Amino acid sequence: MPPSTSPSTPLPVPGRGRLLELQLGPEGPRRTAVEAALRSAIRDGRLPAGSPLPSTRALAADLGLARGTVVDAYERLRTEGLLRTRAGAATTVAAAQSGPNRPPSARRPAEPDILDLRPRYPDLSAFPRAQWSAAIRHVMRTASSEAFGNGDMQGRIELRAALAQMLGRSRGVIASPERIVICGGFTQGLSLIAQELADRGATHLGMENPNLEQHRRIVESRGLAVDGLPVDSAGASLAGVDAARLSGVVVTPSHQHPVGVALSPARRTELLAWAAATGGVIVEDDYDGEFRYDRQPPASLQSRAPDLVIYAGTASKTLAPGLRLGWLVAPPQWISPIVEQKRLADAGASSIDQLALAHLVSTGAYERQVRRMRLTYRRRRDHTVGRLAARLPQLRVSGLAAGLHVVVHLPSNAPSEAEALRRLARSGVVVGGLSASRHDPGRGPDALLVSYAAPPGHAFERSIERFVAALAAAIEVG
Amino acid sequence: MPPSTSPSTPLPVPGRGRLLELQLGPEGPRRTAVEAALRSAIRDGRLPAGSPLPSTRALAADLGLARGTVVDAYERLRTEGLLRTRAGAATTVAAAQSGPNRPPSARRPAEPDILDLRPRYPDLSAFPRAQWSAAIRHVMRTASSEAFGNGDMQGRIELRAALAQMLGRSRGVIASPERIVICGGFTQGLSLIAQELADRGATHLGMENPNLEQHRRIVESRGLAVDGLPVDSAGASLAGVDAARLSGVVVTPSHQHPVGVALSPARRTELLAWAAATGGVIVEDDYDGEFRYDRQPPASLQSRAPDLVIYAGTASKTLAPGLRLGWLVAPPQWISPIVEQKRLADAGASSIDQLALAHLVSTGAYERQVRRMRLTYRRRRDHTVGRLAARLPQLRVSGLAAGLHVVVHLPSNAPSEAEALRRLARSGVVVGGLSASRHDPGRGPDALLVSYAAPPGHAFERSIERFVAALAAAIEVG
Repeated sequence: MPPSTSPSTPLPVPGRGRLLELQLGPEGPRRTAVEAALRSAIRDGRLPAGSPLPSTRALAADLGLARGTVVDAYERLRTEGLLRTRAGAATTVAAAQSGPNRPPSARRPAEPDILDLRPRYPDLSAFPRAQWSAAIRHVMRTASSEAFGNGDMQGRIELRAALAQMLGRSRGVIASPERIVICGGFTQGLSLIAQELADRGATHLGMENPNLEQHRRIVESRGLAVDGLPVDSAGASLAGVDAARLSGVVVTPSHQHPVGVALSPARRTELLAWAAATGGVIVEDDYDGEFRYDRQPPASLQSRAPDLVIYAGTASKTLAPGLRLGWLVAPPQWISPIVEQKRLADAGASSIDQLALAHLVSTGAYERQVRRMRLTYRRRRDHTVGRLAARLPQLRVSGLAAGLHVVVHLPSNAPSEAEALRRLARSGVVVGGLSASRHDPGRGPDALLVSYAAPPGHAFERSIERFVAALAAAIEVG
Repeated sequence: MPPSTSPSTPLPVPGRGRLLELQLGPEGPRRTAVEAALRSAIRDGRLPAGSPLPSTRALAADLGLARGTVVDAYERLRTEGLLRTRAGAATTVAAAQSGPNRPPSARRPAEPDILDLRPRYPDLSAFPRAQWSAAIRHVMRTASSEAFGNGDMQGRIELRAALAQMLGRSRGVIASPERIVICGGFTQGLSLIAQELADRGATHLGMENPNLEQHRRIVESRGLAVDGLPVDSAGASLAGVDAARLSGVVVTPSHQHPVGVALSPARRTELLAWAAATGGVIVEDDYDGEFRYDRQPPASLQSRAPDLVIYAGTASKTLAPGLRLGWLVAPPQWISPIVEQKRLADAGASSIDQLALAHLVSTGAYERQVRRMRLTYRRRRDHTVGRLAARLPQLRVSGLAAGLHVVVHLPSNAPSEAEALRRLARSGVVVGGLSASRHDPGRGPDALLVSYAAPPGHAFERSIERFVAALAAAIEVG
């Protein structure tokens, strides 16, 4: 792409020793362009409140414009309250507008009208703020200086050791610190594995159909083609798949995303047999395995064949996606390839955050948080299912045994999924769509994916009421 | 390896509500199998010290074994000291065995004998622990819940706004929040840019010769070939380079790494003219531009042509590499491609750390830390140069105007760089090598790269004495 050729000038802001780039769009009258550029600079915070502006004469000269054009632009912004002029003093940016020195809530108005129930986030308001703060304080008081380097690309030994214990206990994962690699959430783990497979000459990876579109895009961005593994009530299978050309498969055995089923024992055996026969690798995405409600969670697939499976876990659902911390437990021969990919990708995860998470895990605070949230989410699930059954008994719901969302099936006489999503969106309610998660969108049964985890606790019941009412309206009007 | 078909049972550990998968090998007597499975669970840490075991009766029933078999296995492990039994209480895992719950220091002995003066790290002991702790506490007290999501792949607006101001002030960078992408250190920034160039069909990237081998490897790992730009006392040039085939160049204009020179005005013009003529992109790696001692730092190359240059900065030298936080300031048309690569690579940087850094930058604590360290490093540079001049006056040193290391040139009658590095290493002193940084190692003048930043303050003078003495011995014995 050629470099931009629109007129622009570094605008020296007198008295503060700063430089400001004012860039005029190529189109439209110049006065409007000057106005727009200044307005955007003020909004961005490049021109914070109180900043003196250059004289109209100087700016006009810099931009190659008539002085009157700049005078008009200043005057217009003054009447809007963005600029302040005083006799005998420079024009300055007025204090009342928003800017980056205002608290973020002021600049990013909440969107009170939108209820976002897509199955994406846990309850972000439940993040254990005090514990994280205390964990960081603990690290700052106790860590040796080398902790501030990025020495071990595999991840801090303290975190790997703590995770090895916890994953054994909680998920039956066969883990030792040497088998663990810390990464930036599952996104990065998948990206590193896909890159490594591509570098080895792999061409195809199997992924559940439906699954997260973003995960398919990550794999495809590394040059691999994605073959869909059909998902039924027993989970993913290799039925009808050209399994011989797959170098790996990515599955969610505990709680298929988004369908919500667990991978059956027979299907587990099928996958493991495929891996053993072909040398392909199984990536077990255990994204929400901690949240199972009705019985003890099934042990991880990895526990049955730790040499065939890369287990992937994450703090994104248990703590917060904003932490960007996840972990892979991999067969020994996969460790240095993944670490090497990590070294080339970003030279490791924050050592400080890793130590803080190690502290939470080794003191038990992490598992206490998980238990607390498991109870919370279970109550929310029950409430959601109960409210749906009371108001819309004709709808079947599924995927209830675990996780953070329910699947609401649309009956054949209801509007299509796409139409239901549109109608809900018109009433300000955003949920996910099952069909929209398919590799071939539009094929397969229609259903809505509704997170009961996303709303903060104080707004939970109200949110569900609103969703149920909106859904009733959406499918009844149909 | 075929999937295991051995009998296995999830072993509920009473009183802890946890699950342990106990897996019996297919071979050998059952008592040995139970023993081996328990032993390995204890060693792995899946059964940590203090864990109560199920009753022999319950476990035997779960595994379909005679109770006596399990009693024998428990007894055997008890005599080995792995289990503890008390009359009337559950059998528990004994405390004495080793395992991942031992503190890491016990497994990774410190290496007190090695003095590492490679130009890699700043003084890690100077990390502002209290300020970071306070910044995290501030974020935990003030951030809205959405901060715990990973909403903006480009980076938190608070950090981008704070950086835009600071970079304008301190480095003359033409930055607005919209032009900034937060990334995981320069490593990730370079990786994302190289990936994007490769995806666009680029084949060659120019990089300074010498430079960091790791940076060449990152570029090559994305499928690009690296062409060396020769470096002389005026910095990098395009002399003798097939510049037409380059899609971009990566340079360190403020303080060439590792040679230590600044890019001359004529060379800046040369590079910008190349970029303007070919549409190639210039990546300005401003890795230590904050640390310039003898005069005001030259403004960034980016300030001369913000539409041709991607400016890259990092907290790795100013705070700590362990934070893994860096920033790119890019021409508008580069923003969404880089953000898209970031989305596929790791779905963003930690939002919490970004807010903490934004707090440090916007309160001025970041720049105070930089100023403090600039004074410290300047004193250290002077001390190092003084000690070398006193003890080894025959050696020329260079690269002194900025940065965190000196270049110590080896005279022609001294041992070669490789030999000097070997001899220093034998006395426990590790430094970098100029020739070893070349794309064609061994060609070009020999010199040592010696960090005066790396040692902690209390050990600094002693470290320099040790280095100077070791160097004197290494080149005198020659």
